[in-house]
Amino acid sequence: MNPPIITLTTDFGLSDSYVGQMKGIILSISPGATLVDVTHQVPRQDCAAASTILADVVDSFPPNTIHLFVVDPGVGTNRRAIAIETRKTNEAGEALFVGPDNGVLTGVLQISTVHRGVELTARRFWRSTVSNTFHGRDIFAPVAAHLSRGVDLAELGPPLASPLVQLPADRPVVDRNQIRGRIIRTDSFGNLITNIEASLLPEATRHRLIVELGTQRIAGLSHCYGDKPPGELLAFIGSSGRLEIAVSQGHAGEILAAWSGDSVVVRGYDG
Amino acid sequence: MNPPIITLTTDFGLSDSYVGQMKGIILSISPGATLVDVTHQVPRQDCAAASTILADVVDSFPPNTIHLFVVDPGVGTNRRAIAIETRKTNEAGEALFVGPDNGVLTGVLQISTVHRGVELTARRFWRSTVSNTFHGRDIFAPVAAHLSRGVDLAELGPPLASPLVQLPADRPVVDRNQIRGRIIRTDSFGNLITNIEASLLPEATRHRLIVELGTQRIAGLSHCYGDKPPGELLAFIGSSGRLEIAVSQGHAGEILAAWSGDSVVVRGYDG
Amino acid sequence: MNPPIITLTTDFGLSDSYVGQMKGIILSISPGATLVDVTHQVPRQDCAAASTILADVVDSFPPNTIHLFVVDPGVGTNRRAIAIETRKTNEAGEALFVGPDNGVLTGVLQISTVHRGVELTARRFWRSTVSNTFHGRDIFAPVAAHLSRGVDLAELGPPLASPLVQLPADRPVVDRNQIRGRIIRTDSFGNLITNIEASLLPEATRHRLIVELGTQRIAGLSHCYGDKPPGELLAFIGSSGRLEIAVSQGHAGEILAAWSGDSVVVRGYDG
Repeated sequence: MNPPIITLTTDFGLSDSYVGQMKGIILSISPGATLVDVTHQVPRQDCAAASTILADVVDSFPPNTIHLFVVDPGVGTNRRAIAIETRKTNEAGEALFVGPDNGVLTGVLQISTVHRGVELTARRFWRSTVSNTFHGRDIFAPVAAHLSRGVDLAELGPPLASPLVQLPADRPVVDRNQIRGRIIRTDSFGNLITNIEASLLPEATRHRLIVELGTQRIAGLSHCYGDKPPGELLAFIGSSGRLEIAVSQGHAGEILAAWSGDSVVVRGYDG
Repeated sequence: MNPPIITLTTDFGLSDSYVGQMKGIILSISPGATLVDVTHQVPRQDCAAASTILADVVDSFPPNTIHLFVVDPGVGTNRRAIAIETRKTNEAGEALFVGPDNGVLTGVLQISTVHRGVELTARRFWRSTVSNTFHGRDIFAPVAAHLSRGVDLAELGPPLASPLVQLPADRPVVDRNQIRGRIIRTDSFGNLITNIEASLLPEATRHRLIVELGTQRIAGLSHCYGDKPPGELLAFIGSSGRLEIAVSQGHAGEILAAWSGDSVVVRGYDG
Repeated sequence: MNPPIITLTTDFGLSDSYVGQMKGIILSISPGATLVDVTHQVPRQDCAAASTILADVVDSFPPNTIHLFVVDPGVGTNRRAIAIETRKTNEAGEALFVGPDNGVLTGVLQISTVHRGVELTARRFWRSTVSNTFHGRDIFAPVAAHLSRGVDLAELGPPLASPLVQLPADRPVVDRNQIRGRIIRTDSFGNLITNIEASLLPEATRHRLIVELGTQRIAGLSHCYGDKPPGELLAFIGSSGRLEIAVSQGHAGEILAAWSGDSVVVRGYDG
């Protein structure tokens, strides 16, 4: 039997002991678990950013990985605590997710379907004392740990009585000869990741597309950073399968003063 | 048998290879150990900050966890290198600690008692070459690894001949109708953590307490961040069981320009 | 059998999910592997910095550790992808390295010899879909994982047809009575690490050496930080076996406004 995998995605940062406390609780319950940090540097309380990060990571993990996410501005209020199991098509159980019901699963739900979902109410799977401000340690970590030991989702609480919270859809608008999308994230290299998926850009046309960001115009998609000399702009299909804009050996976000939300237009789409 | 757990708390940061070197040494000696980072971002050489962080994390880990701490401004001088075993009440061995004797254990000693303690002198449990500036790698990491393999504390050196170094007590002053404490730490959310423990604040009175910080006055304790609209100040019992001051969806430390050491007064305590 | 160890050294930072994606891929192939982060904060695309960091960490890990490094400005171009096995003297296999052939191994090659090396071409050990911009996830991580499961280097591709890329040698110049070296790295404490190795500085002479950096002059090497009062400059042999310059309880890099590349001169060497 392979050791169970639990990933952690939070906005806790790395300078406090909060992540360590969660891991201690998990290992107290599930001593052989393999813990993997996705990131603890989600921008504070930014459920949309967490949604993209979590969705991007799911496909890299083996089936039955448990993804624990704690970006939780509503901790202590009546927002639901949930656990869900997702599947792709009709195959075996794909992944489990544990966290607050506040939209962080929006990205996951675009690429997976919920097979089962429960509201976390069974306190016997929680820490004996539950604080009002740290459900990551007191509810979500122990629940993820119990799941990793084989506890069934159904034991954790009743089936969800209403749909999961989802963030507003953020899909590009496709016209006959252009796509209007936007930047959804700047990565730590400064690359600007858009919401325009590769599937919208037929391979045969990619060499003649025009990508516009503010007053910048990029002609044709590149294959890799090295296609352009240092300092030049390029557009390409990034590793998450979305259109990205970068500066060769530079930080596009700073050089272009571009931010999440900025509009990106692709022309020559089928023209 | 569960794999042994070794936690690491240092001020080494994450951009050098120092933490990696320590982990390599540990895994060379104790290949199956589970390593957990508490934090490597203790403010440089700040033993008081390390003391709070370490004390906060201990209760989340299972018994017999080994806590390795390396905030060590006196490395290479004649400060002692130590290993101790703590217990709570009269129960089984609770935790082991390995590091320099410089006050980092002050917080742990407030919640635990030392069952046994030794000065590290037995060089056969150290790295063959010992540098003057990196005892984390050369003494503490290998000693923690040997402990995790079952080496008894008594083999590592003689019992401590004098008490552990402790930092000056930093307890709030309780008057008949007020408590004078101070901020001991700002966490990465900007929440201001005080040295005023929940046990000092009877539950029945919490709704009518007045918390003062500089010119700010907060009436009544909240249950969670969501109790107040964004931007408003709140006071509450935080996840470490101490009074905290926060700004709902904001960074209290920056907004209030408040720092560790600033005075916090609680009034209406029994008035 | 001990679990295999795979270390990771990248410039990906910790705020994106890139490191998490690599770890998911590794654990999908090699579920019991022990993963150790060396650092993910190599300065962006700085192969020379990565070279120093990687070389410093190798000796702390047990034999047969697999070191995965992804500082890869040429990803997607025709730079080679490689895996090598190094040895020290004539002993057993020492370590394996997987990554791009761009000079990051320069430091390792100064302390080890290549026993075998291959160019990665066997796509059956790669991810089924390979992006142009993230070979860390799509080629290097799965190859490292397969190595950790016992796949032989020879299965991954043909022997290297030409030498590995090496960065320009950066050795100090030794004159009759002085050594001219330079700063190669500032660590996160602000300590200035030079390219002057301890072996160049005979122990008997260390107390009377003069170390010069800009207009600063340091007389004699110290043993540890505590040898000098807070705020004073000191020079010493650091934990990686090189001459370092520090400020006691301060950040030498900021205080001296010194940077990588700055000249450091040691006088009185045999005078």
